[in-house]
Amino acid sequence: MTDKQRIYLFDTTLRDGQQTPGIDFSVEDKISIAGLLDGFGFDYVEGGYPGANPTDSAFFAKPRTENASFVAFGMTKRAGVSASNDPGLAALLQASGDAVCLVAKSWDYHVKVALGCSNEENLASISESVRAVIEAGKEAMVDCEHFFDGYKANPGYAVACAKAAFEAGARWVVLCDTNGGTQPSEITEIVTTLIADGIPGERLGIHAHNDTGQAVANSLAAVDAGVRHIQGTLNGIGERCGNANLITLVATLALKPVYADRFAISISKDKLEGLTRLSHAFDELLNRPPATQAPYVGASAFATKAGIHASALLKDPRTYEHVPPESVGNFRKVMVSDQGGKSNFINALKQRGIDVAKDDPRLDKLISIVKEREATGYAYEGADASFELLALKTLGRVPDYFTVNSFRVMVERRFDAMGRLRTVSEAVVKLSVDGKEMMSVAEGHGPINALDIALRKDLGVYQSEIEDLELVDYKVRILNGGTEAVTRVLIESADGTGARWWTVGVSDNIIDASFQALMDSITFKLMKNRELAGKVAAE
Amino acid sequence: MTDKQRIYLFDTTLRDGQQTPGIDFSVEDKISIAGLLDGFGFDYVEGGYPGANPTDSAFFAKPRTENASFVAFGMTKRAGVSASNDPGLAALLQASGDAVCLVAKSWDYHVKVALGCSNEENLASISESVRAVIEAGKEAMVDCEHFFDGYKANPGYAVACAKAAFEAGARWVVLCDTNGGTQPSEITEIVTTLIADGIPGERLGIHAHNDTGQAVANSLAAVDAGVRHIQGTLNGIGERCGNANLITLVATLALKPVYADRFAISISKDKLEGLTRLSHAFDELLNRPPATQAPYVGASAFATKAGIHASALLKDPRTYEHVPPESVGNFRKVMVSDQGGKSNFINALKQRGIDVAKDDPRLDKLISIVKEREATGYAYEGADASFELLALKTLGRVPDYFTVNSFRVMVERRFDAMGRLRTVSEAVVKLSVDGKEMMSVAEGHGPINALDIALRKDLGVYQSEIEDLELVDYKVRILNGGTEAVTRVLIESADGTGARWWTVGVSDNIIDASFQALMDSITFKLMKNRELAGKVAAE
Repeated sequence: MTDKQRIYLFDTTLRDGQQTPGIDFSVEDKISIAGLLDGFGFDYVEGGYPGANPTDSAFFAKPRTENASFVAFGMTKRAGVSASNDPGLAALLQASGDAVCLVAKSWDYHVKVALGCSNEENLASISESVRAVIEAGKEAMVDCEHFFDGYKANPGYAVACAKAAFEAGARWVVLCDTNGGTQPSEITEIVTTLIADGIPGERLGIHAHNDTGQAVANSLAAVDAGVRHIQGTLNGIGERCGNANLITLVATLALKPVYADRFAISISKDKLEGLTRLSHAFDELLNRPPATQAPYVGASAFATKAGIHASALLKDPRTYEHVPPESVGNFRKVMVSDQGGKSNFINALKQRGIDVAKDDPRLDKLISIVKEREATGYAYEGADASFELLALKTLGRVPDYFTVNSFRVMVERRFDAMGRLRTVSEAVVKLSVDGKEMMSVAEGHGPINALDIALRKDLGVYQSEIEDLELVDYKVRILNGGTEAVTRVLIESADGTGARWWTVGVSDNIIDASFQALMDSITFKLMKNRELAGKVAAE
Repeated sequence: MTDKQRIYLFDTTLRDGQQTPGIDFSVEDKISIAGLLDGFGFDYVEGGYPGANPTDSAFFAKPRTENASFVAFGMTKRAGVSASNDPGLAALLQASGDAVCLVAKSWDYHVKVALGCSNEENLASISESVRAVIEAGKEAMVDCEHFFDGYKANPGYAVACAKAAFEAGARWVVLCDTNGGTQPSEITEIVTTLIADGIPGERLGIHAHNDTGQAVANSLAAVDAGVRHIQGTLNGIGERCGNANLITLVATLALKPVYADRFAISISKDKLEGLTRLSHAFDELLNRPPATQAPYVGASAFATKAGIHASALLKDPRTYEHVPPESVGNFRKVMVSDQGGKSNFINALKQRGIDVAKDDPRLDKLISIVKEREATGYAYEGADASFELLALKTLGRVPDYFTVNSFRVMVERRFDAMGRLRTVSEAVVKLSVDGKEMMSVAEGHGPINALDIALRKDLGVYQSEIEDLELVDYKVRILNGGTEAVTRVLIESADGTGARWWTVGVSDNIIDASFQALMDSITFKLMKNRELAGKVAAE
């Protein structure tokens, strides 16, 4: 343990991640995310560029981390003014924060085109800015922008920039692949040469972008070559194609022997088990669905479709899993599908807390219902809640909370009294709850929204229980051509406990398919409430 | 040029891609995708596992590629039977296809646990199966399953499996990282050792999975070490976290000097300019939105937010772009002021036979309408007919053949007189043709089908002209979450001349969106009839 070398993890979600097209953090967002990052255990949390915009200035009004080093990002001083007379640099030094990460040009072409100063002036800016940071009592680090492209164009000058930073006392010099096009083999070659030429690897960092899909590989290539600090973001967000994905890197560094045997990171084994939760919580904050195929943390990362792999997997998980899913807080998933054998079903049910004997005739019935339905277009592998409901119904354990006796949905497009074209959608639902008949009517954005609102408008004695039920995603798939096609609807629901579930409906009528999925969602929610109640009562 | 070594590209979208959770291809899907792959220029197209399921058996009833080698996938013969008596192998040899890719165990642990035979029996199965493929007149290749994990456990046996395949005459032996956990440095080390020990690199392939986010890097590490054949999929779909993304790999191999200077691939420069289109067409077929941050082809891959990068970018694109976006058919996007080219529009119109002067103010109007509509969710890229109609309308050349004054669509689910649950969909349409009011009513399979039938039931003087109009495909995409989401509908129509065209509608009401697309389709058909009539008359 003690002879392992330390790899430092630097998160730039709040700074480079802010450059992601379509992502804009508020101060409140930044406070929440800083809390997630700090709690998880990263070494450095870069918060933004105080002085550059009002959000970042407000965010840097106070320290925002307790354990992690809180880092302000900004530019080295301009040429022609002294460090103490540069207002940008002054804002950085005055902001809260334990460290300052200065971005510096290291490609002579950029020094000329973007800064318009001489190569020597740029070197002086680096040295003086680093010294000013240290004099302000903060840790200094330098992001060498375009380092690899600069090195290819003029290796002597790129190295001179790094040396200027080191000699002025920078704790870290970070080699940035700003345009993201450098290949791992080039990273290996350049970093190896640098270190052979006397640049200290234990003070070098890597900042990689994903423009050729290799930000993670480039980061690891740099570590293999001697770098000891990695910059990246949660779920790999960032400018253009994104930055190195720290979620993936943390798991690889902690779990793959080729790294874990040689290096130590700041993330404990316990924290690592929260990796999937961290990744999903961040997506939640961005209001987007987690990527199902994300390494380690995706819903499909440990999923296997029925077939040869599935049966081997059940014999010995090691045969088809490169790490244990629970080590990153994820789950093994053997998917239910029409190719599945009986043992897959038993396993799938077991994972949902449903025990059933292999020779129970109701199990055969369930299997034949699932196969029959999947042949007509249902897809239970994407609709866990509908599968669970169907299983429990077939095994005779779901009460009929309520019954929908009829519904009517109408969409009308006509000119209103003012002569404007209007489209109105209205739904009427008649249902029985506890022997009592109720009728609800609602308008909505389109027929399915109207039906959804009408269905949930008055569920009688159950109404208070579904107040926190929310539909968060809705997918439609046409299973064959033409407007008379069979339609599959998938609905994702969520509630106040943070739980999410998918339900499915299939019909040649899109309204009917949506109705089935909506009904399953409500029934699942009611059933879920009871299970929770049962658990609380039992404690 | 001639001294470059050839890298062979093997696409397994239709086989390993089929293992993606949530993806199931029909025979028609497979035919379309095979067409895309073959047209783009891949060397090998693996179609599936004939004999294993009805879809793949039907797909392999005929050859499905013209240029690419069409590959059937399957297992080596079982131990204890001869190659000629193994029904699985027989199905492979009888299926159409130029080549057979046999999957073979190369980890001794799996030979014992999964096959339950001896190591020697497995070697014999490999040799005999390869010979049987060659005797059937097909090219033989062998996927060594779990090669890297197997090599770590028992290098001698893993190598023996590869040698058995080579000695029996396999063109390629493909090293598979089946569990996806191998690191690039391990790939480099193992492949380098193999080749140093006499295994021919020019007959080795790599099959990588993305479980640590490095499928692309692992493929390139193998190429760097001497492998000359890469297996991957479109957009990196595949089991668990996916396979190596061939879209990314093609661009990197063709455009990054470290590869392009040394290697040649089968994809021409012209075809490479269709890379973005290929990637998006495949997502369209999967009915999912393209990933915005995908390397090379994502909408954000060459997007820059306002700021220092953007201004430098405008001075010299090379400063912040690792390759020219147009080389892969993508676009630069500076998000402050969209420079989206006027000349692009003129070009697109010219392709449709519409000539318009660069200084025509109606052109500016068209550009602003298209940009505004695309911002609200229209996708004219996938709806040529709607774009052409919009252009002609804006340029003032489309007559109003007919007007829909109002419509009403109703879906009702209730118990009929016999006590059976019934869902009925009915549409009423009121329209004016040539000053004459008409009203039609129709029932259909679902509300959109009812509306479609009612709309086309009586178009007065135009009725005879649309008799051969047929809706052949219907796609729905939900553009954001929830049942009140904005919906995009794409409709493909065809007529008796064999022509096909796509139209689009967008609304928060799915009926309204469908109505727009249906209207565009009918109007396009009427306009098309006239153009054709004009051309015939002119001849």
